[in-house]
Amino acid sequence: MSSKQGITSRAENYSDWYNELVQRSGLAEHTPVRGSMVIKPHGYAIWERMQRALDTMFKETGHVNAYFPLLIPKSFLSREAEHVEGFAKECAVVTHHRLMSSPDGKGLIVDPDARLEEELVIRPTSETIIWHMYGKWIQSYRDLPLLINQWANVMRWELRTRLFLRTAEFLWQEGHTAHATYEEAEEEARTILDIYRRFAEEWMAVPVLTGVKSKNETFAGADHTYAVEAMTQDRRAIQAGTSHHLGQNFAKAFEVQFTSAEGKLEYVYATSWGVSTRLIGTLIMAHSDDQGLVLPPRLAPVQVAIVPMGRDEETRAKTTAVAEQLAGDIRANGWDGEPVRVVVDKREKESPGFKFNDWELKGACIRIEIGPRDLESGTCVVVPRDSGVKGTATLASAAPDVVAALGQMQKDLYQRALAFREANTARVDSWADFEAAFAGEGGGGFVLAHWDGTTETEQRISEQTKATIRVIPLRQLSPEDAEAGACVLTGRPSARRVVFAKAY
Amino acid sequence: MSSKQGITSRAENYSDWYNELVQRSGLAEHTPVRGSMVIKPHGYAIWERMQRALDTMFKETGHVNAYFPLLIPKSFLSREAEHVEGFAKECAVVTHHRLMSSPDGKGLIVDPDARLEEELVIRPTSETIIWHMYGKWIQSYRDLPLLINQWANVMRWELRTRLFLRTAEFLWQEGHTAHATYEEAEEEARTILDIYRRFAEEWMAVPVLTGVKSKNETFAGADHTYAVEAMTQDRRAIQAGTSHHLGQNFAKAFEVQFTSAEGKLEYVYATSWGVSTRLIGTLIMAHSDDQGLVLPPRLAPVQVAIVPMGRDEETRAKTTAVAEQLAGDIRANGWDGEPVRVVVDKREKESPGFKFNDWELKGACIRIEIGPRDLESGTCVVVPRDSGVKGTATLASAAPDVVAALGQMQKDLYQRALAFREANTARVDSWADFEAAFAGEGGGGFVLAHWDGTTETEQRISEQTKATIRVIPLRQLSPEDAEAGACVLTGRPSARRVVFAKAY
Repeated sequence: MSSKQGITSRAENYSDWYNELVQRSGLAEHTPVRGSMVIKPHGYAIWERMQRALDTMFKETGHVNAYFPLLIPKSFLSREAEHVEGFAKECAVVTHHRLMSSPDGKGLIVDPDARLEEELVIRPTSETIIWHMYGKWIQSYRDLPLLINQWANVMRWELRTRLFLRTAEFLWQEGHTAHATYEEAEEEARTILDIYRRFAEEWMAVPVLTGVKSKNETFAGADHTYAVEAMTQDRRAIQAGTSHHLGQNFAKAFEVQFTSAEGKLEYVYATSWGVSTRLIGTLIMAHSDDQGLVLPPRLAPVQVAIVPMGRDEETRAKTTAVAEQLAGDIRANGWDGEPVRVVVDKREKESPGFKFNDWELKGACIRIEIGPRDLESGTCVVVPRDSGVKGTATLASAAPDVVAALGQMQKDLYQRALAFREANTARVDSWADFEAAFAGEGGGGFVLAHWDGTTETEQRISEQTKATIRVIPLRQLSPEDAEAGACVLTGRPSARRVVFAKAY
Repeated sequence: MSSKQGITSRAENYSDWYNELVQRSGLAEHTPVRGSMVIKPHGYAIWERMQRALDTMFKETGHVNAYFPLLIPKSFLSREAEHVEGFAKECAVVTHHRLMSSPDGKGLIVDPDARLEEELVIRPTSETIIWHMYGKWIQSYRDLPLLINQWANVMRWELRTRLFLRTAEFLWQEGHTAHATYEEAEEEARTILDIYRRFAEEWMAVPVLTGVKSKNETFAGADHTYAVEAMTQDRRAIQAGTSHHLGQNFAKAFEVQFTSAEGKLEYVYATSWGVSTRLIGTLIMAHSDDQGLVLPPRLAPVQVAIVPMGRDEETRAKTTAVAEQLAGDIRANGWDGEPVRVVVDKREKESPGFKFNDWELKGACIRIEIGPRDLESGTCVVVPRDSGVKGTATLASAAPDVVAALGQMQKDLYQRALAFREANTARVDSWADFEAAFAGEGGGGFVLAHWDGTTETEQRISEQTKATIRVIPLRQLSPEDAEAGACVLTGRPSARRVVFAKAY
């Protein structure tokens, strides 16, 4: 059962639906370079809006941008013991700096004389090179805090990749901050976590759980890791951002000490934090449907698509003129502090039906149809993407109505996703119920259960059910979740419920 | 003779002046990765302003952004014969995808079992991977034009590097467009050239010559290359941006054909164009002085720095309050469609003298000093960075004056650079005069001379004088430059004067 767009439905095969939708809607494509995608203009336009919103929030909280090298000396990775464990096995390694013509005259070979003295890896993340530099920049408490972010590409050689969700190369921002005290670093890590939560909820219209990761899921080299976790329509968890308190681990590995106000030499405290193009995958998985993308208005590249219709050229000229007028009114009305992003679809070779489907597929928030009969009645047809319910508006006053509908849609998408998550979140106290919740191929929603706090139990649970601990919640969904109980697997004491789910 | 900033003066050693200034002013630094720099927050803030201005101009002319892979299969480079010649010798090559612990337990080695089937190079530029993808996207004339840009990092393994001017890794934008006809591609290449010219003149306050490159300086794989060329204070040329008409070269190399409106199968025409973080180097070389950075207001991260003064805390509290009030007035007044970027320098441990020097070094456009006597007289001291001439303003009405001064400075910097270029541009007709113009270590300005049009002559001139042809001008500086004459070296016929200079 495939939709009118020729995309597999979610019910039939959620994974195929996602893969086909990403490509058919023009967001991204595979390339001949294994694991590396092309982010096409429609997908990149979403990323640009995400970047701008996040960048503004980072700057409002005192952060500045910089740019550090793509390549990292191999030896730097070894400096922090856990970090190297986490990343060495999936690094792209640069060994040479020159190609030469093949002796047989056919193509190019690597020039054996151009071998590097020390191999370089393409950054999988930049803690090591950044803390090397911070070592040169930080001498005194007066040099602190350092609150630096970079927008960059990184590479992790994943064997199983999926567009946006898991690619060898991806785009992200990585913040790296340096502080005089543990408490200041802790406050920073939580400030960022809250920015990620607000961004997910207010911009992506995606409700998220915030919390601490178990030791097993903590970033390689961190003291502890905070994360925001969203739920997909197939009832799995998807990690949408992480904020790490690195303690003094990297300062010790790179010998970064500062003279305190009291004249003592101390190691610097650190945080690092990031979100990536994975957010686009999260966005799709949260809202889109069998007809195509459903995008929240604040992030949608096209908020309103107007399709003027008419059988002959003369009629089309009239409806197009009215469409342009309306587009101008809507743009000028503005929404969310910006001109509304309106397109008048004047493609001559395509039928109205093709255009309706196309804008559904691409996730224009509101479609407006203007035909010859509408001109007579002074009306137009208005179709919000989320409900798909056709309505009629008076042309002369359509602009404010359309703008109001954008605001409503932003709220509705969030509420719908929240209701979905709530309907798929359960508290489970027996092992039989726990296993039943995660039986089968699909997700099992979020399960709040007691856990004895050991990595061993976490791993046994994961082996038997594929469910892992997504977060130890910071904000309780219900007060009872903070009460003590017995581990769902071992029966040993548990201080509080944690969130289990199958994860992307 | 070094300045009060401890920087070598331009007169003493222009090259040292540049290197020291870039680092002392906090724009960029070297890293342990040969040829790769860190762009520090102050430098990156300039780049962000450049990006935003250019990105807006690209979008106003119908371009959209996308993102293509960092890594390119080695075999792709060989597809276009001239392109491979231009880039194969300076490529960073990825040969493996995993590291492993060294058998001796000390550090990491490259895992020999993780060798790639085909080596990948870090993009030196993206024509090859992009035209591979375009081959999938373009079938019909209805798919054209494609007007795509990307903001990305690229890598060219340079042996002699200089911060911003020539680094192994640099940031840039690269536009790649596809068109149905030669004429359309030609119009695109010139549209972009004009955007680069306007950006240099209107934002950077740097006058540029526009023109065509000689065959010798044409991009590897292009039909012809347009460039904008600026003049540095040591009277050399610096290429600030290039726009290439690629003809059908890449379409043929990657087999990209389209069905025309008439139903014929034809190869696609292409352009590519780029500017990079080199622009920051150009900016410094155009305006800055022995005291530090001089930045045009439209690109300066800090437009106004206010230094409140006072010997005791109580006085400083008063001057600081007045400074904050003035900062608010100036911000609210706005300039160039944005709030003015104002900093009140409240650092407690630094003296006013230190702060004055620091803002001079960092290129704040206007410095305002407010001391206790100023409070009594209701005035403040205003010092524009370019002239350094102290003036007095009435506090109550200072905001509009300061804003007007920013506008004036933007114009003055351009006019001063233009006058400098004009004073250092000469028309030369004899070989003796030509050699004399370029004798010695320094630059020789721009020399307009006749040339017989052959690569051989161009190379002989370059060998004897180090001067190369920068552009064959599109806009004549004087009508006589378009008149025919005799080649300055060979005496053979020449259709017009071309611009020679020593180049960065």
